[in-house]
Amino acid sequence: MKFSELLSKRWTESNSLLCVGLDPDVSRLTSHYSPDKDGVEYFCIDIVDATAEFACAFKPQIAYFAAIGAEKQLENICAHIRANYPTIPIILDAKRGDIGDTAKMYAQEAFDRYGAHAVTVNPYMGGDTIEPYLVHKNGAAIVLCRTSNAGSGEFQSQLIGDEPLYKHVARRAANEWSKHGDVSLVVGATYPEELAEVRAIVGDMPLLVPGVGAQGGDPEAVVKNGANSQRTGLIVNSSRAILYADTSDPMTAAATVARKTRDTLNLYR
Amino acid sequence: MKFSELLSKRWTESNSLLCVGLDPDVSRLTSHYSPDKDGVEYFCIDIVDATAEFACAFKPQIAYFAAIGAEKQLENICAHIRANYPTIPIILDAKRGDIGDTAKMYAQEAFDRYGAHAVTVNPYMGGDTIEPYLVHKNGAAIVLCRTSNAGSGEFQSQLIGDEPLYKHVARRAANEWSKHGDVSLVVGATYPEELAEVRAIVGDMPLLVPGVGAQGGDPEAVVKNGANSQRTGLIVNSSRAILYADTSDPMTAAATVARKTRDTLNLYR
Repeated sequence: MKFSELLSKRWTESNSLLCVGLDPDVSRLTSHYSPDKDGVEYFCIDIVDATAEFACAFKPQIAYFAAIGAEKQLENICAHIRANYPTIPIILDAKRGDIGDTAKMYAQEAFDRYGAHAVTVNPYMGGDTIEPYLVHKNGAAIVLCRTSNAGSGEFQSQLIGDEPLYKHVARRAANEWSKHGDVSLVVGATYPEELAEVRAIVGDMPLLVPGVGAQGGDPEAVVKNGANSQRTGLIVNSSRAILYADTSDPMTAAATVARKTRDTLNLYR
Repeated sequence: MKFSELLSKRWTESNSLLCVGLDPDVSRLTSHYSPDKDGVEYFCIDIVDATAEFACAFKPQIAYFAAIGAEKQLENICAHIRANYPTIPIILDAKRGDIGDTAKMYAQEAFDRYGAHAVTVNPYMGGDTIEPYLVHKNGAAIVLCRTSNAGSGEFQSQLIGDEPLYKHVARRAANEWSKHGDVSLVVGATYPEELAEVRAIVGDMPLLVPGVGAQGGDPEAVVKNGANSQRTGLIVNSSRAILYADTSDPMTAAATVARKTRDTLNLYR
């Protein structure tokens, strides 16, 4: 099943727009877990089990695994999700971007090796570097549009003609790249006005929205500005606020924060 | 030693502007090598040994390793280069780009895990996502500016004010990011006029130039348009033309093509 179809079903099944981000910083694991690759794996699997009920998607951030050589552990976590929660899509947050031949290798990594349903990609190099993810069997690309970091406007907000770069990216995604396959966009919760502008351009396309939780994005503004005509369309990611909610009983706290975040988002749908 | 210092010494020592790209496609290995992770490792180490004499740098492309789960083999290849050719810088071609906390993890991956001297990064998310590579001990960033692929102009050539996006990236690199650490830029050999424009903006800054060899960039135009005031300043990458030069005696052929490419580049210095 295509990523967008799986996601649509999961939005309905879970009644949730919350995506749980898996960014396991080995220096922040509680004493319940060994501060190493295996600790990272068990921690993430416990987080998955504790929060699955409240999640429309899981988003492992590959940098946290790559930094410590824990690719095998990431494979195991993705396999655990697919085996136990086959209706929940996996988004590999890798922000890949390279020329065609190399992009095919990254697509193989994301979809064949890790079994992700979608991968985040960077548009700077142009549409010919995004297409390999779209034409890969069961592949899907979530393209960076307006990112959540403080400095994201340095290039993304520069005007080309009378519109900023990120709106050009949104138009290309909606009008061109979507002809080749399953495209979504990343728009940060920290820029709710831009979220509304992108929604106006892309119709019902799914938007991955990081920046709620530790980064301070407002859930009300995200839902009001970003929901699509179905009152879904949003993959609202929270990572650190869930993963590190409490040090004494981290999994109970993670479940509680995930449930509350889901419920808060649903208040405004 | 910083990347740019190591590189400067190596330009002199080797009398070469050639960077040998390590893009080992397992499906293209000759029968001398097993078509698996170990074959990839032995193939790359043989390529390194055959071409080191003619190289100012080595550039492993991480996608080819990530696709098949050969991170350990990439670690071994980098360790081989550092142990046997300590004067040759290693550029990890990973085109990373993410928010600050995550970028620190990618910096750890590139510099601590693989022992690379520089890593390629994508500027779309802004300067705050590049700084973590620059402030990492002995770190360096090579930022995508005007890439070699056919569709690179889709956003990079769009005018912001009266200049294309890639020239804004070049100016930021030269005037701002370079204050924080060791910055270079990527400009494709397939766009020699743009190479001259970028050189005019960035002074003597090193430029990584992919696209000579299989992608068809012209060595004469690259050197004439891209060399700096020292008649160096260029890291001219060739991967496939060297790696797959001949199937019967691949290492002799790789050395021959590397030597000829070095000599051709030197003709125009």
